[in-house]
Amino acid sequence: MSNQLSYATGSTFPPQNGPLRLYSMRFCPYSQRVRLVLAAKNVPCEIVNINAKRRPEWYLEINPLGLVPTLQHDDGKQVNESFIISEYLDGVYPQNKLIPTEPYVKARNQMLIDNFQRIAALLFRSLKFKDAEAFNEISKILDNYEKALGSEDFFGGKNPGITDYMIWPWFERFETLKPLTNNELDKKRFPKLTAWVQRMQKQDAVKQCASEPSQILEFYKVSLTNQEPDYDIGLEKPEPPPPAEGEAEAAPAE
Amino acid sequence: MSNQLSYATGSTFPPQNGPLRLYSMRFCPYSQRVRLVLAAKNVPCEIVNINAKRRPEWYLEINPLGLVPTLQHDDGKQVNESFIISEYLDGVYPQNKLIPTEPYVKARNQMLIDNFQRIAALLFRSLKFKDAEAFNEISKILDNYEKALGSEDFFGGKNPGITDYMIWPWFERFETLKPLTNNELDKKRFPKLTAWVQRMQKQDAVKQCASEPSQILEFYKVSLTNQEPDYDIGLEKPEPPPPAEGEAEAAPAE
Repeated sequence: MSNQLSYATGSTFPPQNGPLRLYSMRFCPYSQRVRLVLAAKNVPCEIVNINAKRRPEWYLEINPLGLVPTLQHDDGKQVNESFIISEYLDGVYPQNKLIPTEPYVKARNQMLIDNFQRIAALLFRSLKFKDAEAFNEISKILDNYEKALGSEDFFGGKNPGITDYMIWPWFERFETLKPLTNNELDKKRFPKLTAWVQRMQKQDAVKQCASEPSQILEFYKVSLTNQEPDYDIGLEKPEPPPPAEGEAEAAPAE
Repeated sequence: MSNQLSYATGSTFPPQNGPLRLYSMRFCPYSQRVRLVLAAKNVPCEIVNINAKRRPEWYLEINPLGLVPTLQHDDGKQVNESFIISEYLDGVYPQNKLIPTEPYVKARNQMLIDNFQRIAALLFRSLKFKDAEAFNEISKILDNYEKALGSEDFFGGKNPGITDYMIWPWFERFETLKPLTNNELDKKRFPKLTAWVQRMQKQDAVKQCASEPSQILEFYKVSLTNQEPDYDIGLEKPEPPPPAEGEAEAAPAE
């Protein structure tokens, strides 16, 4: 559902096609959070992918910081920030409630999600600087998640809930990015999380929103060098337009 | 309500006195957020102040990162992180509801609160490095808050709501810390926010949780140098214990 060619600088604004649109980026874990929630709740939504390196001018009018994800209703309502969008969607679409209403259960989920920001930052450090200590720190934090899962199948109980979907994108990356971090989830230290990963991989929403591992790897390899990665890896691209008349002749002769 | 002497390294854990306790720090804006919510909802809560530079050993068992605020129930339930605590309190104590239930109105409040993190970071930069550009950035972000306030008295409408209380501690500091930043809220650029500040200052909760301006200023002056500030400025301190027998004699003679 996210396999649309991305829009870059110079592109024309695509008129909204349906009541709900998500501005997303195919390999962005925060965008993936919202796509997971949409899939888990079976909410149809148009996906518009943004080239995060060369953002369309029109996107900066929608989101001045140029960040994804942004959710846009056709009545003009707009919501930013992955957790806020997810909670909003869970409030508006009552099917398959992901966020518990009991205040303390809800707060516990929020703390697990909030604290996971530290892991997201550490994974980046691990990737960027091949910093083994960063992965040690990740493991120390994950000890709490192993403990929090307890004897449940999912953080949401018998079925995945908000915490499961908010933290999942990084677990997908632990495995896929192993060649870059030289590290992965230690199955002996994390038997419960390991079993949870296997259960998550069987969920329809997770399957629908998964990226091809080789594509994530290729994407990170390039983006970590601060070069522009191919935001459209693996997608069928339109034929480049034929050279404008006289262009070949205009090229400098060597 | 927060004028209790702070606990530091080497202190003895104080047994909980009542159903609800907040670990706080007198000059911490995040702790102040929760104190404002408690005051606005008129929820009695024991305050235990923590010396953030020399944290008690027992506090690191309660909150391993040593951060404040932490809310502790006498039944063992614990909630961290100022917004999560505030939402939890608003869910548990129904009087004077601060968080709207309509999903989009709620999301708009959350976005205003979330985005304010950038201002908190910029104010620190402005204080630490006397960086005039940081205050310009703050003003650019505040343009959105001026606009969001519109013709309302408060972000919460006719009365202060969650956004008002979550962003207030920094407005208190803009004014108080003017001698350190050489900057303040521009009254011409922000007429609505200026009137909002005056309305907020009249709120009982705000008055109850305000710090003495000279104490905040003194506190920041010292803590910005990475020295240990006096967490108990202005409080009556116990007499130091008399020197142990023989101590004077044991001091090295110059």
